[in-house]
Amino acid sequence: MIEGKDTGSAGRKLRFGMVGGGPGAFIGDVHRKAAMLDGKAELVAGVFSRKHENTIATGKSLGLDESRLYRDFEEMARQEAAREDGIDFVSIVTPNYAHYAVAKGFLENGIHVVCDKPFTFKVEEAEELARMAREKGLLIAVTYTYTGYPMVKHAREMIRRGDIGEIRVISAEYLQGWLATPLEATGQKQASWRTDPTQSGVSNCVGDIGSHIENLVSYVTGLKIKSLCANLDIFGENRTLDDNAEILVRYEGGATGVYHCSQVAIGHDNDLRVRIFGTKGSIEWAQESPNYLKVAYLGQPVQVLSRGEGYLYPQAARLSRIPSGHPEGYYEAFANIYSTFASALLKIKAGETPAAEDLDFPSAEAGVAGVRFINKCVESSKKGSVWVEVA
Amino acid sequence: MIEGKDTGSAGRKLRFGMVGGGPGAFIGDVHRKAAMLDGKAELVAGVFSRKHENTIATGKSLGLDESRLYRDFEEMARQEAAREDGIDFVSIVTPNYAHYAVAKGFLENGIHVVCDKPFTFKVEEAEELARMAREKGLLIAVTYTYTGYPMVKHAREMIRRGDIGEIRVISAEYLQGWLATPLEATGQKQASWRTDPTQSGVSNCVGDIGSHIENLVSYVTGLKIKSLCANLDIFGENRTLDDNAEILVRYEGGATGVYHCSQVAIGHDNDLRVRIFGTKGSIEWAQESPNYLKVAYLGQPVQVLSRGEGYLYPQAARLSRIPSGHPEGYYEAFANIYSTFASALLKIKAGETPAAEDLDFPSAEAGVAGVRFINKCVESSKKGSVWVEVA
Amino acid sequence: MIEGKDTGSAGRKLRFGMVGGGPGAFIGDVHRKAAMLDGKAELVAGVFSRKHENTIATGKSLGLDESRLYRDFEEMARQEAAREDGIDFVSIVTPNYAHYAVAKGFLENGIHVVCDKPFTFKVEEAEELARMAREKGLLIAVTYTYTGYPMVKHAREMIRRGDIGEIRVISAEYLQGWLATPLEATGQKQASWRTDPTQSGVSNCVGDIGSHIENLVSYVTGLKIKSLCANLDIFGENRTLDDNAEILVRYEGGATGVYHCSQVAIGHDNDLRVRIFGTKGSIEWAQESPNYLKVAYLGQPVQVLSRGEGYLYPQAARLSRIPSGHPEGYYEAFANIYSTFASALLKIKAGETPAAEDLDFPSAEAGVAGVRFINKCVESSKKGSVWVEVA
Amino acid sequence: MIEGKDTGSAGRKLRFGMVGGGPGAFIGDVHRKAAMLDGKAELVAGVFSRKHENTIATGKSLGLDESRLYRDFEEMARQEAAREDGIDFVSIVTPNYAHYAVAKGFLENGIHVVCDKPFTFKVEEAEELARMAREKGLLIAVTYTYTGYPMVKHAREMIRRGDIGEIRVISAEYLQGWLATPLEATGQKQASWRTDPTQSGVSNCVGDIGSHIENLVSYVTGLKIKSLCANLDIFGENRTLDDNAEILVRYEGGATGVYHCSQVAIGHDNDLRVRIFGTKGSIEWAQESPNYLKVAYLGQPVQVLSRGEGYLYPQAARLSRIPSGHPEGYYEAFANIYSTFASALLKIKAGETPAAEDLDFPSAEAGVAGVRFINKCVESSKKGSVWVEVA
Repeated sequence: MIEGKDTGSAGRKLRFGMVGGGPGAFIGDVHRKAAMLDGKAELVAGVFSRKHENTIATGKSLGLDESRLYRDFEEMARQEAAREDGIDFVSIVTPNYAHYAVAKGFLENGIHVVCDKPFTFKVEEAEELARMAREKGLLIAVTYTYTGYPMVKHAREMIRRGDIGEIRVISAEYLQGWLATPLEATGQKQASWRTDPTQSGVSNCVGDIGSHIENLVSYVTGLKIKSLCANLDIFGENRTLDDNAEILVRYEGGATGVYHCSQVAIGHDNDLRVRIFGTKGSIEWAQESPNYLKVAYLGQPVQVLSRGEGYLYPQAARLSRIPSGHPEGYYEAFANIYSTFASALLKIKAGETPAAEDLDFPSAEAGVAGVRFINKCVESSKKGSVWVEVA
Repeated sequence: MIEGKDTGSAGRKLRFGMVGGGPGAFIGDVHRKAAMLDGKAELVAGVFSRKHENTIATGKSLGLDESRLYRDFEEMARQEAAREDGIDFVSIVTPNYAHYAVAKGFLENGIHVVCDKPFTFKVEEAEELARMAREKGLLIAVTYTYTGYPMVKHAREMIRRGDIGEIRVISAEYLQGWLATPLEATGQKQASWRTDPTQSGVSNCVGDIGSHIENLVSYVTGLKIKSLCANLDIFGENRTLDDNAEILVRYEGGATGVYHCSQVAIGHDNDLRVRIFGTKGSIEWAQESPNYLKVAYLGQPVQVLSRGEGYLYPQAARLSRIPSGHPEGYYEAFANIYSTFASALLKIKAGETPAAEDLDFPSAEAGVAGVRFINKCVESSKKGSVWVEVA
Repeated sequence: MIEGKDTGSAGRKLRFGMVGGGPGAFIGDVHRKAAMLDGKAELVAGVFSRKHENTIATGKSLGLDESRLYRDFEEMARQEAAREDGIDFVSIVTPNYAHYAVAKGFLENGIHVVCDKPFTFKVEEAEELARMAREKGLLIAVTYTYTGYPMVKHAREMIRRGDIGEIRVISAEYLQGWLATPLEATGQKQASWRTDPTQSGVSNCVGDIGSHIENLVSYVTGLKIKSLCANLDIFGENRTLDDNAEILVRYEGGATGVYHCSQVAIGHDNDLRVRIFGTKGSIEWAQESPNYLKVAYLGQPVQVLSRGEGYLYPQAARLSRIPSGHPEGYYEAFANIYSTFASALLKIKAGETPAAEDLDFPSAEAGVAGVRFINKCVESSKKGSVWVEVA
Repeated sequence: MIEGKDTGSAGRKLRFGMVGGGPGAFIGDVHRKAAMLDGKAELVAGVFSRKHENTIATGKSLGLDESRLYRDFEEMARQEAAREDGIDFVSIVTPNYAHYAVAKGFLENGIHVVCDKPFTFKVEEAEELARMAREKGLLIAVTYTYTGYPMVKHAREMIRRGDIGEIRVISAEYLQGWLATPLEATGQKQASWRTDPTQSGVSNCVGDIGSHIENLVSYVTGLKIKSLCANLDIFGENRTLDDNAEILVRYEGGATGVYHCSQVAIGHDNDLRVRIFGTKGSIEWAQESPNYLKVAYLGQPVQVLSRGEGYLYPQAARLSRIPSGHPEGYYEAFANIYSTFASALLKIKAGETPAAEDLDFPSAEAGVAGVRFINKCVESSKKGSVWVEVA
């Protein structure tokens, strides 16, 4: 066992509230644990459900004061903004359709925002939120979880330093099998809202998981998509939104790529994988073994880098809590986003300027790009899978 | 994404204190995060270091009230026992040498105990603590982390149900490479205390990691070791304690086994792996891919089971927080031990009787067996690697 | 070690000749070893090089009679056809450009043909050869090696029996890194002819390896490509043919697919991998671990099937020579094509009708489909990566 | 595809005969294919079975001249020795019990010997054969297959050059599951003779597969076993020989090791795996992925070396026939032993002195060490698994 480190934060904890995340939710509890893992933030308020009795029940089980369990987000935004000890930020973990209105409501009340992805339904909405935040000096984080993994940070830094040369080709996929059957017909909550256009938007599969590919590739490589050609499929019975998509991509500068996301890929759980091929080497990262990174340099054996080892770049090392070989997982990646966001916010609250590394979380701009990507994929596919300009 | 679940606990949080876990510690911070992950317990008191100023610094960084940052564990035990809102349990995360005295001090004051492993230096000490706890109706958990992984629970239940028949052979290993060089000579804290007999006891490698093999195998299979034959090596320069050990094992009932633990196995980080061969099938689990379990039945293809899937036994399912393919890691395993311990303790505090599943954490008796194993390995090796009776 | 089997053939050996495969060749020696591995055929004649002295040298090193080392293929075809003990078939292992003329020459002389892939430059040429063979009652095998692996046979049979239901999505790739640099500039023979349009045809990467994807998917699934949309890249300096291609595919019946082939994928050697997702299950096979097949059924653990085990279908079992766990590789797969071809030919020579299983080798029709695929990919890419009709 | 090479040999082929390898045999056909793969040898004579009609049948199916299908090995040895065109060497592929007598018979007649392992029943017999060969200037190869894999050669050369420093610890295992049930009771031929002491000798599991561990470790590391402590188990119903063994090993010079061989390890096919830990690095090789070698150096990422790549040492490179990523398997490893043996023998026949690399096949001395290892394991276990001196 090598030297560990104490990741507890000094000074005061941030206070936060939550919209969404009631009974049957998956991601709400993840946000709560992630936000609090490093001791930098404390949940104090919430609207966990459209039904107030559910909010009360969830809130009590979480030990919250009943006076801060609100009927709707507008009430919460107003009242929290008015309190001396009001929340520093809100976490928005509702189905997609509500993101825009809720985020806007809190920004208008001067409250910083953490919002699940995809950011909004429409590009204009996302851009409006980004603009509001800039104008009001507020932070927005869009929780693209996977950029929080230390080995993803290492991959990014390798590319930034030119370790694998100029990027030529990207192959990325996100495969799940849980919607291979029409699970939504059973009333399963996660399946139901994701396959419902009124809650999920114009896309299910690209919106839910394809957007993670887009964000992860963009984050790691810095490449901008110039145009794309997408084929969206609907395989599930009685479904109206896509559950599989294959996408060709052209980036600015000449690299090309191929993305595949699927929810009908039986045998795959949450298989996000990205491979990046440069002129001098290549990188592969897979979400289900997130503590490792495969790297190959021209003419040399493939290497397997392990989180926690001394040879990692500081960008990865500083977000690693325990020694190599002790697996960190999904919560810890998620917590890295919250922890980074909290570092920035604590500095802002203290009147300091956040360092670049404090701002290394997925921004409103990343959220905008994600919404644009989803909409462009749908547009391409609807037109017969033709090439559409993105940038 | 499949249906998640809210693992927040209802009702009041347990209060706990900590002994050990100051600056430079690795496992203290793990205990803190693990104990609090599911919202069932809150850290309120501590002696984090032998130097009081360090305790003050760590305690403040954790937001503790200075009045509950004590000079030594005796003071803490007495004063916390006397408080109305005193701690419900203590977490002991010091180097091994202090476990016995500290645990005894808290038990004497009627305070439940969570103690890191190995439990004590001597078998008699461990037995005494176990007896004290029984007599006083207090709980002891010894934090053998790896039994907290859901797939380990599944393996155990498979064997209990006879899925792989009668056990014949066990092959288990725990390989690390971090002590391949004399790291302790650099002053590295983790290496220094582990290789120091006054802090670590009669064994470094068997005590630190070999004991995890013993516990894991015992937990999963229920087999008792009848006799063993151990070879302990010292490879590191100027070292006085073992850094590698190979052990042959005979279990009651006729099964045999082979264990290998090493801290000089370059290329391995924290590679605990156990394989169990029965008359009808086999099981393999590896700590570095903890969300999977390899299972083979006679004449059938090897299967790879994945945490979070619907086919798992309830014992595994109930300790899994997020859907399959979203990696849970070391913290979550650790948290499962705390969470289970907390469930039992909350029921006791509420005057209820804990269910069997609430008591499914490593007990004082497991701690006793662990100390006996370490001592027997050392005895065997010293006598020329002869067979010694264990049970 | 389980019961093995003697794969030596009874009766007379077939005699064969070879065109191509001189000094510096890779695939020629593979064909020779593969053709002879099971003792069904013997090399007796050849034109190994355009330079007769090279043919003489290679022929002598192989122990051939000098009278059967010819100056050109026309001479060889004529003279062998005229001999009492003339060759039963010819193996054509030249660079692509010569396949058509050589195959035609031997067919015209009534000699059966084994030809490396891709079959010809043009679809019309391939169709002409297929027609000639049909009309003359001659066999043609096009050596798409990978269909020779037993686990590929098993996958095919699984799909034929409906084990994984109706196919929805196919994801296949063939990644190599050996042309990441302009290796042809060094004079390396394999790189030189493949990147030279006069020897290789309209495509390098799709022709050399993309065509294996097409054939493998077609063989395993039986699906016909309806249309495709291909992006071909040229990354290597001073190269005129593609070295990377991403291809979207629509099959008759509604399935969709995505193919990626690359020769600039540093870190990959010969990484052909195909995944097939059906309504009831999925299959994955990777050429670099050819003795295994990953299979997943809805709601069940992933399975890893192993060549040589008793649970395999007869189509796989009969082409497996040694027990499970004893790796069979590239030569053995190649030999399976020759062995099957030889079985058919031996029956024909004996006046018998080959059984269906004797004809389970890649046919002239497969060769035609392959040439069409290559040409359609090039056409699509040239037109701006638009969709083109294939079937 | 990188530059291949023609491995056909120049000049005359060696002639060889075979004893054993009739109907139902596994290893006989392997020897035949392996011996002939590289075109250096040709089978011309044999006694394939104790029943002459079986020998006739097998011989005919192999196209042999009936005059060279003998009634027993004595007849074959005498007559072949007397022929002008007699065999250059004999391959002995009978069950173990016959190795000694048959080898002796051919050596006495001046015929070189390739013999399957284990070499003989008794150490004295093995030593006698080794001595005879030395005195008569004859070659003996004992076909420990696994030393023929190129990556094993690379591992050996790495250690010879000191790449991983001084060896400290070795962990090796050979796991199979095919005897988990009493397969011999069904009459299965491979199981029957291996579990029969009159045919197999004092040990089944250690003799059949444990001996491969001993040879592989010895070959790769050059270490000599000083003493060992073995536990041999019999799990199969009505079995009289071991089917599982765990062995502790001490080498001359201070390294220690642990070996585990099993035939009751359900889920494992032919899982031979060796890991070697030195002061500067470690090496891992697994027979079921024989084209790869895992290497780790102190403080660096784990590397995966691939057969066929340019960075391999000449000792590995020269026995690799096809480019990286094109799997070579069991036959090719076996063929490397024959090919090397044939190179040496061809030089001897030509009056030349074989080079060191021509003699890099498992020798009679390796055969002696193997027999000693088996007998020492049995002796240790019988005495209660005590330590016994070996060297």
